[in-house]
Amino acid sequence: MNLKIAVLPGDGIGPEVLLQAKKALYAIAEVYNHEFVFEDALMGAVAIDKTGNPLPEQTLNLCLNTDAVLLGAIGDPKYDNNPNAKVRPEQGLLKLRKELGLFANIRPIKPYKALIEASPLKREIIEGADFTIFRELTGGAYFGEKTLNEAGTHASDLCEYSEEEITRIAHLAFKAAQKRRKKLTMVDKANVLETSRLWRKVVQKVSESYPDVKLDFLFVDNAAMQLILNPKQFDVILTENLFGDILSDEASVITGSIGLLPSVSLGEKNALFEPIHGSYPQAKGKNIANPIASILAAALLLEHFGLTKEANVVYKAVEKAIEYKVVTVDLKPDSKFGTNEVGEFVSNFI
Amino acid sequence: MNLKIAVLPGDGIGPEVLLQAKKALYAIAEVYNHEFVFEDALMGAVAIDKTGNPLPEQTLNLCLNTDAVLLGAIGDPKYDNNPNAKVRPEQGLLKLRKELGLFANIRPIKPYKALIEASPLKREIIEGADFTIFRELTGGAYFGEKTLNEAGTHASDLCEYSEEEITRIAHLAFKAAQKRRKKLTMVDKANVLETSRLWRKVVQKVSESYPDVKLDFLFVDNAAMQLILNPKQFDVILTENLFGDILSDEASVITGSIGLLPSVSLGEKNALFEPIHGSYPQAKGKNIANPIASILAAALLLEHFGLTKEANVVYKAVEKAIEYKVVTVDLKPDSKFGTNEVGEFVSNFI
Ligand SMILES: CC(C)[C@H](C(=O)O)[C@@H](O)C(=O)O
Ligand SMILES: CC(C)[C@H](C(=O)O)[C@@H](O)C(=O)O
Repeated sequence: MNLKIAVLPGDGIGPEVLLQAKKALYAIAEVYNHEFVFEDALMGAVAIDKTGNPLPEQTLNLCLNTDAVLLGAIGDPKYDNNPNAKVRPEQGLLKLRKELGLFANIRPIKPYKALIEASPLKREIIEGADFTIFRELTGGAYFGEKTLNEAGTHASDLCEYSEEEITRIAHLAFKAAQKRRKKLTMVDKANVLETSRLWRKVVQKVSESYPDVKLDFLFVDNAAMQLILNPKQFDVILTENLFGDILSDEASVITGSIGLLPSVSLGEKNALFEPIHGSYPQAKGKNIANPIASILAAALLLEHFGLTKEANVVYKAVEKAIEYKVVTVDLKPDSKFGTNEVGEFVSNFI
Repeated sequence: MNLKIAVLPGDGIGPEVLLQAKKALYAIAEVYNHEFVFEDALMGAVAIDKTGNPLPEQTLNLCLNTDAVLLGAIGDPKYDNNPNAKVRPEQGLLKLRKELGLFANIRPIKPYKALIEASPLKREIIEGADFTIFRELTGGAYFGEKTLNEAGTHASDLCEYSEEEITRIAHLAFKAAQKRRKKLTMVDKANVLETSRLWRKVVQKVSESYPDVKLDFLFVDNAAMQLILNPKQFDVILTENLFGDILSDEASVITGSIGLLPSVSLGEKNALFEPIHGSYPQAKGKNIANPIASILAAALLLEHFGLTKEANVVYKAVEKAIEYKVVTVDLKPDSKFGTNEVGEFVSNFI
């Protein structure tokens, strides 16, 4: 197979973990006779530094004209505490999501057996948990109108949703549930928010086409509790953009594996693959960042293009690395292995 | 001391847990020679059923003209899955918060030593955690304009904040931090939301009056992780309404003690005391609901009026109940004690 892949290393540890994902893909290409062509481009703080624009036109065009996008991570603390910054790395990511129409962010959450001890939760709570979060990614308060009055004393964010935006991701989530344990939990705040009530109504309607899937509802505050109290109850979780941001990060740490979880963002035509974790600037350049989530993002990419066998080889290689404890310090505090060594092990295993 | 207390039992288990709080307050009044006058009133689903209005005028007037409000819990599932319901129990609570100007909801989070095993988190993670969440309670998406177009296909919620709203709760939070470990963590989503950037700016400004308090910032997704990974890092958390709703519920379960945590909501003139937990309708009338959070809400009320000695007696009584395992089934699955028995034990101990 020929694939043209846009590579956006981004900020912080983004470039170093992405490099390991590329190594794995090169190894797969060689062994299985595929041709993967990578083209690097700027996005995030690094793009601001070099061009003044967090998503340069060139990067956007590249992403629009490739088969898939592999992203490292975005974000730099120098922008975070400056409420007056006009340009921000995250704007690049948000614009990219919007322009590529990546309306569904999908995060599979599953603890690794060998790493259950690394979870802050007790073994009996987390063992056997296995669920997927469908987060709407191009709507809600992320993209609604924002205002700040001239005096700088009053601000607003508008959260908006349309039936259409809800319907398309709901179908994806129900279809995924059909292939899993046939349970879908819609998370919202319908006792307070009008948009949540619209979500509930539309999802109820969509559910009529999936009579084999059991649908239930949780308020977001309760969901934040249930994820910790009993994560095994979940199969597919469906939620809007901001709730999905919060809950999927919460979910990722209960597995003890934030450095291990990838996600895919899907649109009608495009797909973007990235680790769940952020740019972790404190670790930049130290060869200590865990590359596994980024490598698994590459595996999701392979799966997405039907290269199931190849994806499974990557999964197996990662499992071996964990089994042999060729892992970074976040998983084994006295580990001698760094980002590079873990990446090497995985690509050598392929 | 003479206190006139409005009592809003509300829905689900609200009335039964509140009854135990009243018993404790009666016992305190008797032993310490105070006069507490209780007046019951309707709010929530029960008020809708009887009057059509979740916050009848009479209830509001009572609350405006008493020293404090004791609330049980609000909410009934029959409204939750009906996106077309025009009247909802929660509207009563939200209106009450607004009319009483209860802008700060304060939730102290601390695990009970004897109950650490009940936490879903490992002992070493949770032991020693001790923090307080300051949640803004009368602004944000809860109270902004809501729209639904005529076709019912497009909805919106407006999240708004003003400098003034942020300033007043920030001062409370900084003052609390000064009396504690002098650390304040502001939680927001300033990389995306304009209101969050206003929060950051205003809180930074307020912090100049509290040079002894260390201020830091966390994005809400990261905060949802950090609460689980390392809750001991927190002292005072300050955040807006919706983030506070989610994070404080999340925080309450990591202690293993959701049934044990009270909260107070403060305004310029009024104060409302309630358990953190909800109306838990499945348990209604079964004498299994844990009354401790409600009893501790009463203790917070005593503290609020300077009755520190009396409050401490209640705290001690609750600790004894836990020590002697006179607790409900949520804390001890084979317990023979119900809501009433736990309440009796506590008030007898006073
Ligand atoms: C960087 C930030 C804008 C982004 C988000 O909030 O969507 C990140 O947290 C994520 O989850 O991908
Ligand atoms: C009942 C509901 C409206 C309320 C809220 O979201 O504020 C509750 O969850 C709370 O935290 O007091």
